[in-house]
Amino acid sequence: MVGGGRGAFIGGVHRMAAALDGEIELVCGAFSSSPEKSKLSGEDLCIDPARAYGSFEEMILEEKKLPESKRMDFVSIVTPNHMHYAPARMALENGFHVVCDKPLCFNIEEAHHLQKLVEETGLLFALTHNYTGYPMVKQARAMVKNGDIGQIRKIVVEYPQGWLTTKVEDTGSKQAGWRTDPSKSGIAGAMGDIGTHAENLAEYISGLQITELCADISTFVEGRLLDDDGNVLLHFEKGAKGVLHASQICAGEENNLNIRIYGTKAGLQWFQMEPNSLIVRWLDKPMEILRTGGGTLYPAAAAHARIPGGHPEGYLEAFANIYRNFAYCVRARLEGKEVDPVYNDFPTVSDGVRGMNFIEKVIASGKSEAKWVSV
Amino acid sequence: MVGGGRGAFIGGVHRMAAALDGEIELVCGAFSSSPEKSKLSGEDLCIDPARAYGSFEEMILEEKKLPESKRMDFVSIVTPNHMHYAPARMALENGFHVVCDKPLCFNIEEAHHLQKLVEETGLLFALTHNYTGYPMVKQARAMVKNGDIGQIRKIVVEYPQGWLTTKVEDTGSKQAGWRTDPSKSGIAGAMGDIGTHAENLAEYISGLQITELCADISTFVEGRLLDDDGNVLLHFEKGAKGVLHASQICAGEENNLNIRIYGTKAGLQWFQMEPNSLIVRWLDKPMEILRTGGGTLYPAAAAHARIPGGHPEGYLEAFANIYRNFAYCVRARLEGKEVDPVYNDFPTVSDGVRGMNFIEKVIASGKSEAKWVSV
Amino acid sequence: MVGGGRGAFIGGVHRMAAALDGEIELVCGAFSSSPEKSKLSGEDLCIDPARAYGSFEEMILEEKKLPESKRMDFVSIVTPNHMHYAPARMALENGFHVVCDKPLCFNIEEAHHLQKLVEETGLLFALTHNYTGYPMVKQARAMVKNGDIGQIRKIVVEYPQGWLTTKVEDTGSKQAGWRTDPSKSGIAGAMGDIGTHAENLAEYISGLQITELCADISTFVEGRLLDDDGNVLLHFEKGAKGVLHASQICAGEENNLNIRIYGTKAGLQWFQMEPNSLIVRWLDKPMEILRTGGGTLYPAAAAHARIPGGHPEGYLEAFANIYRNFAYCVRARLEGKEVDPVYNDFPTVSDGVRGMNFIEKVIASGKSEAKWVSV
Amino acid sequence: MVGGGRGAFIGGVHRMAAALDGEIELVCGAFSSSPEKSKLSGEDLCIDPARAYGSFEEMILEEKKLPESKRMDFVSIVTPNHMHYAPARMALENGFHVVCDKPLCFNIEEAHHLQKLVEETGLLFALTHNYTGYPMVKQARAMVKNGDIGQIRKIVVEYPQGWLTTKVEDTGSKQAGWRTDPSKSGIAGAMGDIGTHAENLAEYISGLQITELCADISTFVEGRLLDDDGNVLLHFEKGAKGVLHASQICAGEENNLNIRIYGTKAGLQWFQMEPNSLIVRWLDKPMEILRTGGGTLYPAAAAHARIPGGHPEGYLEAFANIYRNFAYCVRARLEGKEVDPVYNDFPTVSDGVRGMNFIEKVIASGKSEAKWVSV
Repeated sequence: MVGGGRGAFIGGVHRMAAALDGEIELVCGAFSSSPEKSKLSGEDLCIDPARAYGSFEEMILEEKKLPESKRMDFVSIVTPNHMHYAPARMALENGFHVVCDKPLCFNIEEAHHLQKLVEETGLLFALTHNYTGYPMVKQARAMVKNGDIGQIRKIVVEYPQGWLTTKVEDTGSKQAGWRTDPSKSGIAGAMGDIGTHAENLAEYISGLQITELCADISTFVEGRLLDDDGNVLLHFEKGAKGVLHASQICAGEENNLNIRIYGTKAGLQWFQMEPNSLIVRWLDKPMEILRTGGGTLYPAAAAHARIPGGHPEGYLEAFANIYRNFAYCVRARLEGKEVDPVYNDFPTVSDGVRGMNFIEKVIASGKSEAKWVSV
Repeated sequence: MVGGGRGAFIGGVHRMAAALDGEIELVCGAFSSSPEKSKLSGEDLCIDPARAYGSFEEMILEEKKLPESKRMDFVSIVTPNHMHYAPARMALENGFHVVCDKPLCFNIEEAHHLQKLVEETGLLFALTHNYTGYPMVKQARAMVKNGDIGQIRKIVVEYPQGWLTTKVEDTGSKQAGWRTDPSKSGIAGAMGDIGTHAENLAEYISGLQITELCADISTFVEGRLLDDDGNVLLHFEKGAKGVLHASQICAGEENNLNIRIYGTKAGLQWFQMEPNSLIVRWLDKPMEILRTGGGTLYPAAAAHARIPGGHPEGYLEAFANIYRNFAYCVRARLEGKEVDPVYNDFPTVSDGVRGMNFIEKVIASGKSEAKWVSV
Repeated sequence: MVGGGRGAFIGGVHRMAAALDGEIELVCGAFSSSPEKSKLSGEDLCIDPARAYGSFEEMILEEKKLPESKRMDFVSIVTPNHMHYAPARMALENGFHVVCDKPLCFNIEEAHHLQKLVEETGLLFALTHNYTGYPMVKQARAMVKNGDIGQIRKIVVEYPQGWLTTKVEDTGSKQAGWRTDPSKSGIAGAMGDIGTHAENLAEYISGLQITELCADISTFVEGRLLDDDGNVLLHFEKGAKGVLHASQICAGEENNLNIRIYGTKAGLQWFQMEPNSLIVRWLDKPMEILRTGGGTLYPAAAAHARIPGGHPEGYLEAFANIYRNFAYCVRARLEGKEVDPVYNDFPTVSDGVRGMNFIEKVIASGKSEAKWVSV
Repeated sequence: MVGGGRGAFIGGVHRMAAALDGEIELVCGAFSSSPEKSKLSGEDLCIDPARAYGSFEEMILEEKKLPESKRMDFVSIVTPNHMHYAPARMALENGFHVVCDKPLCFNIEEAHHLQKLVEETGLLFALTHNYTGYPMVKQARAMVKNGDIGQIRKIVVEYPQGWLTTKVEDTGSKQAGWRTDPSKSGIAGAMGDIGTHAENLAEYISGLQITELCADISTFVEGRLLDDDGNVLLHFEKGAKGVLHASQICAGEENNLNIRIYGTKAGLQWFQMEPNSLIVRWLDKPMEILRTGGGTLYPAAAAHARIPGGHPEGYLEAFANIYRNFAYCVRARLEGKEVDPVYNDFPTVSDGVRGMNFIEKVIASGKSEAKWVSV
């Protein structure tokens, strides 16, 4: 693991997600840019002190020296955006599979380079767009793919949060600090941090790529250096249209990612904050509510639920689905087997490139007087 | 009443809304463009046969001849859009107050003319943007006005319906027929029929006017002559931004008008389909759900509820609030009194002009390559 | 109308409900036990002063003298419980149909007498158990009758309110005053006021009668003279079992009547506070939410909705369904026609007798050491 | 771990819950009563083959021989009810702490013996009444304890499930099989399996013990040997009253445990299937919805949430809270430290005794003609 030391948020999430299914064991890490903090974090985590490294470079080089059966099987990168590229690149160049937090990296050039490296090395690369790990998101995608809702016409995807309604980056919040700092986050604030989740979710479920967009990007909090709100009109392939809005200044909102997809036969609706329900509004029969763990789901959904219906699964379980599927694929590689296609399903470096491209285009559109920007 | 004969929809709604509070009695009508059908409808409604007129012209002229104590007190116009202007104009010119269904009329020129007539005659004119009649909409407006949610930053207003997902205008539906016919509806379909409700609701609650918009207007159903879907970016006064989307092709949606308004201190959310709840998300304390009939509402909300909390009030009660307030104002005129300001609250011809202007601009923007169109 | 003068609650509800559909006109009344207050209330309601009577006796005798075409068609009784019997009896004895608020009367003897009078006179008698007027309650009943949910096993019906959590009868509340006064309310408080609604709803939907009950009846507020809370185990015909609990001391609850009925094939759930949805949980397919105004309802439900799905109908519309159906039946009598069976559906004096019997037995059980009391 | 081999359900839940926080490692097990199956299960779980034992007796004896630093720290018992007592007793007698699935054991005598053993040995004993592990359950308990809702008057606790609506025990379902088999489950079916969860939840949150009950216990599915439904009236300490109903024949219900507690100042409501919300209905101010991860919770709630509000935590996280707290207490023992009281919070053998007592009394009451049975 690279990053995720004391005081970090997403590192702990990655560790819980990786541990849940008993498929993955944390064996080493460079948990902080400070070697001492890395050591201390290693102790917290009961890691062999020899494998709590002072830097990711050291970690990759030292682990590579270990016999195959003992060395780490892959690298997890859980640092802020500007620190994704270097460890990802080095891991790939040294033959390690990679799990990387989103967005993929700092800019589109890095993204293209990582994509090229993945193609050249043939290594596995997972990007933790974790919201696609929810069973009912898989169900929605399967329903679209099977034509259950007909041809898609309209997609509305929203991601309102409220935690940056005031200037919390000035109050010492580490999470707010780097996310609003262009030198760490890149050219986008909210649109990179959560807008890309919304974009990824829409494309994942619909199977349609965004072709054009028209964005109204704002920074509402005075003195903030990056956007904290964006409203975007979308054109998708095959004539579908849509709206994406994401914000971190929607006072009182927690983490309200949600999506609606309307086809010619039915509409789907899913809320991340009540993730075990998928609302299906049929054109000509009563509204249905499909449920995680229910008996009538597609295999892709059923395979990503762990417990019977009514025992709610949440954010960590969805996150864990990314890790578990990745682990199954890594193990299949090691064992020279094929993985069941239902598990060969996690966001990859290509999703990351699309996300970085979305960031570039949505910020450009925000500054443009022209209505539409091609994606 | 002008319109609302056999087979009509909104005419019956107007009649129920007007009857609910015992303030208004239906005394005459020109219920159809066919004199025979008008007579028959008059019989259905137990109207004095002599006052079931063959045309609105006849109705206005004949009623005017009656002594003041017997003649109708105002005219209700419930015809399709292209038939609003002529009876409204004639009623005003002959000294009758008017209640008119929305949108105000067929085009912006008619709208301006009606506004001028209302100003010149000093008569009362109510436009039935009925959704502003709900108690919790009044509550939301009062909260904004009192600064409870701070300065408004973002407004999201949605109006998805699904009843025009297929080409029902070809199946003999009278309601679908005129709404998709440019000669009856005007230049807009969905944006005129329901987009204006969304626009009116947003401006009513927020107290902010739309200053600029950027629209993506679509006709999804092949062969349909007017728009059935629109996604719009909005700029409001005082720097607020927003999104409006309205559609009649959102398969499975009933009548899902809803709005969220985020200020610097709190966010408000209201759903027309569960109209007795107003969700308030505070920045620094738990989410609250305010309820129609509850004990902690502003006077403007309390005055528009009829029964205790938990006895749900609905669409007809909200519609009736427009009529009751209008009736109170008409009666105050007749009696030479002042009406309590809490009841002097219904949409007027000015709202109608703003709505017609919105229609013109949103359709123009839909055809424009420029990003922003001034409103 | 008998009762419903200034300061009353349910009288106004009856008037709005009666007015909504344009079928019924209020022509006379004895609105108060004080003749002067009755006159004033008559003025408020724009009644012909000659027909604002000083007592119900006067009203019945004077109206009877009028020619048939001018006299009232039926009597509405909206007084407290102890004042139901006398006007109901006199109206029936003088040939007038009756609408009466619930519970039917003061004790079981009165109830049996009224039932006998209705049988002897053949007059129409409606009891305003208004909650059975909701379209989705009709839908639930039709689904049960058609075997859609299989054989009923379990019924849970609840009616929690919170408005008597403190001793509001001491604060001058007229509504609380008579409801907690044994001389006006009878032997039961909450169990009579709302317990009977719950009992009636359960029997109406299920088509099953309660055969045995076991009650735990409480008065939580010190010094209150009647019960304010009750929990009851139920046995129904055909082996179904159930739970009924009703309370007026459930702090913060508004008017949360709700019911669940579980059969061998599906379970139904309905909430009065969101009355336009009926939740259907199938054994072997996804949960459905049926909606008032939707296209897939049984005729009994469709006939009791006025407006399209998504335009919420509420308490007054359900109440109005009782009045409208009663008016249809009265008119059919007058015209010597048959009424469409779908409208020949309102609670009658028999429901009233069952309700009074329930009150007797549930209070008796509350005092008994034996487990089961036969109903 | 004792039990939880291939085909088991709750064993996997225990393993995921124990793994989540990185505090506990599965080191050995007797996963099945068949030694071969135990070995195979051990392989599935990547256990050292030497420590995949053929029986719990072997496991306990062999592990005891290992040096303290290598031997297991505690035993987890995840077998059917009739197989709890023997391993629990032997573990305690040999000095191992115990985590045991609920209900505690097979009958009240075993329960008392285990309680005595725990007292004598001073060892730690956790019972996985996992629903008390939810943060919002902790919040509810803290609110009650702090007097926020005033004095408790009424408690309604429900646990409807539908999975035994048909006779699935005849279709080869292992889960249904033992739960409906008196030789494995004990004297109770639904009342033991889920009724005890409801009882435990009510007592945990309210801090009040049940003193008397009156039960109506049923077996609806023909040929089933144990109860599948029960409705129970409750008396609690300090004059509170309540209703408990639990069922496994409520067609279509998933796992709908929920509770309402009404005090003199407010009412609380919590649903296990939407566990991150706690509804608070105040007597004199708007309804609030408290949320897991929100900023205004009591320390007991905050300490049991892992991620920010809006990132839903579910069943496994609540289950993991039991394990994590138990692990903290075990570790504190090992290190001779005090554990923070906020973590010294998990169901113990005393809860287990109360649960077994509840089972005895509720089944006895179901057969009794007397109204009340003392608990």
